Amino acid sequence: MIRVNENYLKLQASYLFSDIAKRVEAFRAAHPEREIIRLGIGDVTRPLPEACLKAFHEAVDHMGAEETFRGYGPEQGYDFLRNAVAREDFQSRGADVSADEIFISDGAKCDTANIQELFSLDTVIAVPDPVYPVYVDTNVMAGRTGGFQDGRYAGLVYLEGTKDNGFIPSPPARPVDLIYLCFPNNPTGATITRDQLREWVDYARENRALILYDAAYEAFIRDDSLPRSIFEIPGAREVAVEFRSFSKTAGFTGTRCAFTVVPKDCAAYTAAGDPRALHPLWNRRQTTKFNGVSYPVQRTAEAVYSPEGKAQTRALIDFYLANAAIIRMEMAALGFDCVGGENSPYVWVDGKRDSWGFFDLLLEKAGVVCTPGAGFGKCGEGFIRISAFNSRENVENAMGRIAKALG
Amino acid sequence: MIRVNENYLKLQASYLFSDIAKRVEAFRAAHPEREIIRLGIGDVTRPLPEACLKAFHEAVDHMGAEETFRGYGPEQGYDFLRNAVAREDFQSRGADVSADEIFISDGAKCDTANIQELFSLDTVIAVPDPVYPVYVDTNVMAGRTGGFQDGRYAGLVYLEGTKDNGFIPSPPARPVDLIYLCFPNNPTGATITRDQLREWVDYARENRALILYDAAYEAFIRDDSLPRSIFEIPGAREVAVEFRSFSKTAGFTGTRCAFTVVPKDCAAYTAAGDPRALHPLWNRRQTTKFNGVSYPVQRTAEAVYSPEGKAQTRALIDFYLANAAIIRMEMAALGFDCVGGENSPYVWVDGKRDSWGFFDLLLEKAGVVCTPGAGFGKCGEGFIRISAFNSRENVENAMGRIAKALG
Repeated sequence: MIRVNENYLKLQASYLFSDIAKRVEAFRAAHPEREIIRLGIGDVTRPLPEACLKAFHEAVDHMGAEETFRGYGPEQGYDFLRNAVAREDFQSRGADVSADEIFISDGAKCDTANIQELFSLDTVIAVPDPVYPVYVDTNVMAGRTGGFQDGRYAGLVYLEGTKDNGFIPSPPARPVDLIYLCFPNNPTGATITRDQLREWVDYARENRALILYDAAYEAFIRDDSLPRSIFEIPGAREVAVEFRSFSKTAGFTGTRCAFTVVPKDCAAYTAAGDPRALHPLWNRRQTTKFNGVSYPVQRTAEAVYSPEGKAQTRALIDFYLANAAIIRMEMAALGFDCVGGENSPYVWVDGKRDSWGFFDLLLEKAGVVCTPGAGFGKCGEGFIRISAFNSRENVENAMGRIAKALG
Repeated sequence: MIRVNENYLKLQASYLFSDIAKRVEAFRAAHPEREIIRLGIGDVTRPLPEACLKAFHEAVDHMGAEETFRGYGPEQGYDFLRNAVAREDFQSRGADVSADEIFISDGAKCDTANIQELFSLDTVIAVPDPVYPVYVDTNVMAGRTGGFQDGRYAGLVYLEGTKDNGFIPSPPARPVDLIYLCFPNNPTGATITRDQLREWVDYARENRALILYDAAYEAFIRDDSLPRSIFEIPGAREVAVEFRSFSKTAGFTGTRCAFTVVPKDCAAYTAAGDPRALHPLWNRRQTTKFNGVSYPVQRTAEAVYSPEGKAQTRALIDFYLANAAIIRMEMAALGFDCVGGENSPYVWVDGKRDSWGFFDLLLEKAGVVCTPGAGFGKCGEGFIRISAFNSRENVENAMGRIAKALG
């Protein structure tokens, strides 16, 4: 008899976005004349940069001629892209990362979801709260947690992000083995300083722990004092893996390209305490379970690093950052405490009431959709996330309506 | 201390293709004047069909304009593609499969690798021998096997494909829970009849087992009496999942698109014997760990089902099938027993000596590279796989040289 992996049955159904959709639908039915502006979902809205479109078309042409056609590519990604990433994203900033430590993939979601396979089932895991649910759910599925009780899974160590710590959790008092960190943070938009990140690297070194560093929003950092990669911190090569994406950097949410950096110095240990390098393990995982990213898509990502591509993606991010600044300024002017919105496309707003109550208020009074913070974990209760991914006009209208409704 | 998943350490390094590369390199160094023809790797060589290229360019243009730009798509794939697949690949052949049972992905390799996550760790697994190594390795990684001894992993049930059974294993005498089948087969090229497949479906129903049916080479079937989908067999909807790919059908090995059919009638069971539908479990797996296939790639795959696309992909497959027929005819004329090469791009040749010996013979005497069957499992010993994925000229030259060398 084929038996189900019963760990899947522990998973809580994620009603966040379907609940939002239901409430929006009910509002629309009750007020068909009202126009709704969506600042809820973290998805880009602007077209791919010109340089990317040009490269995309050229690579499609390559697939149309026998001499330039590409079949199976390397599972780790083509050298043309790995080299560009290593040089432009790391070496140019003084981070010691080589091209063969870059693994090109079709999404940071996939990579942050899959990496846990490399570790033993009794790994003690620390996750942020509020949290991107993928970190938690993939460990539940694998059987590294107990059941769900009082809003949390048994066995996980929750790193609380609160007003008191500026939404930057410190290393826990008890030793943990695997730590998920995400900066600039989703959902709070908080950024970590070099000193704060050094604390984490030092903790990981002392405890032989591993940090999974999700830097999908790195391109939004404009403050040069902030680290853009964990590999800017000395010693991180031995204790960290980093995840990056072209999704928010260059508008690739529908095009699909990302990458993961697995330094050759990084190890996990056998029960006997023998170190095993992670690089060949991840390589084995990827070559066994993945067939590489579409060739035209990799050419499109390569174009992000051309002089035109760099200028165009910077302009794209500047556009969303300007939206974020408007959102933050307006919400602050209305007396709400905010974090994020600087060096991040998300603004995390203390609504001074429960998350869903504030969600309903904004929907009903202003016709604006946000994301209730409670959907990201216990510490998200009382907050909402407002996303800067929309047109300037919509952002300005939304903020005007909120000001009118709450002012 | 971060602990490694020690199951990964049981994995045997796969030296097959690197060993081939080393021997070819040594031959090239010793005989720089000899031209080598590669009929080893199962990768397509001809460009994408015109209809696909046109759709690809159009979809790239969509990504360049705000009104047509696509961000995150549904993880399960766009309806335009799911509808086309259900209608053209299944309903038109009388197989009862609906669009929402189709999960679009970036590769059948990924899907056949990932599906095992849904099942318990004590699942008893049957795999073919010879075998596509992904079925085995992914279960080793998950911890469903013991160590490697005498060429096999402890705990797996091997379904032997031999001359005696025409390379079509029958259901095992002992009950198993999960069964991997692949037809047309990689590496043997053997095809299964409707009656033979019915035996497997009946076995699965009697034992509450599940069949994972890999039909990546289905488009090469030209004999209408052969089943192209397991869902043409009555009762299969309750006991089978099917994997398909555009890789070999339409030359997508570098473009990346595939799909998996999970019927809503299919279940796995809890320890207490309660059925749990697989469809929502796979949906949960995909929505948690995957972000969907690139939008332009899905549009490219959709074009395979247009009238032009159908004609062009049929011509593409006809071309490789004609290569396969030449290979099979020539090898048979030289007195070698062959299977495959009809309704399949692979010809499986009994070399009448050990696989690597025959490999070396063909390389040294004819300058032709094949794949030693021993690389696919114990039952592959004594055989070689010759692939039809090359130009007509190369195939004809290769066969002429082999005839001259061995005739």
